[in-house]
Amino acid sequence: MIPDAFQLRQIGIIRSELKDIDDCPHQESEDAPEAWIEVDPAYSDALEGLEVGAEILVLTWLHLADRSTLRVHPRGNPENPMRGVFGTRSPDRPNPIGLHRTRVMSLDPPYRLRVQPLGAVDRTPVVDIKPVLSGDR
Amino acid sequence: MIPDAFQLRQIGIIRSELKDIDDCPHQESEDAPEAWIEVDPAYSDALEGLEVGAEILVLTWLHLADRSTLRVHPRGNPENPMRGVFGTRSPDRPNPIGLHRTRVMSLDPPYRLRVQPLGAVDRTPVVDIKPVLSGDR
Repeated sequence: MIPDAFQLRQIGIIRSELKDIDDCPHQESEDAPEAWIEVDPAYSDALEGLEVGAEILVLTWLHLADRSTLRVHPRGNPENPMRGVFGTRSPDRPNPIGLHRTRVMSLDPPYRLRVQPLGAVDRTPVVDIKPVLSGDR
Repeated sequence: MIPDAFQLRQIGIIRSELKDIDDCPHQESEDAPEAWIEVDPAYSDALEGLEVGAEILVLTWLHLADRSTLRVHPRGNPENPMRGVFGTRSPDRPNPIGLHRTRVMSLDPPYRLRVQPLGAVDRTPVVDIKPVLSGDR
């Protein structure tokens, strides 16, 4: 087992007008605002070749989540029957990795990018960025 | 900072006929084989309500990856120009989280599910399961 197994490294941070978890949409949509992703300069080489207009998946660490939650009322509505969190996008889950599909609107090299939409609260840590593939559709 | 910040918990494991990293497809497709996901019994409540036929995203920890890699030749082909790993699906990246879109083919309650396709090597740790949303398309 390598020493840092299962230990995520923060590669960037979200800068957003969403200052509070209650401001975040339950499910991301075109209604979510734009945001900036500030990538740690140590990882800026990993952005090379990323272009304006690209559809990307931003993986975040939902630092405000409750990791002990295994079942929820979907969308936080008590009228929805409880179900397991692996069948929902609840941020409360054993590993609170957020998955945000968004688009690169502009680049401020070497390590800032503006994206829209993004429904994560300001200062949410970023752990990965991946391109959207046709197989994701 | 909570003590286990950024520390992933293994919630399950992949069981697959793909025994070697060289057997894995560069990009997942319908050609990838079926696989079983064995969820740790401690997390089986989180599967409640998941149904056969559901499209899911399986997040894995690509334990064989090189985390120091920031740029690669896409698809491992030296003829492809180098680019940053955040613009590729290379398993070699700072946080080697695999993202696999697949479908639940059968359930063996309380904690095993058969899925297809899945292009991850046998014994790859699983860290999350999420439903596919219409916004992912």
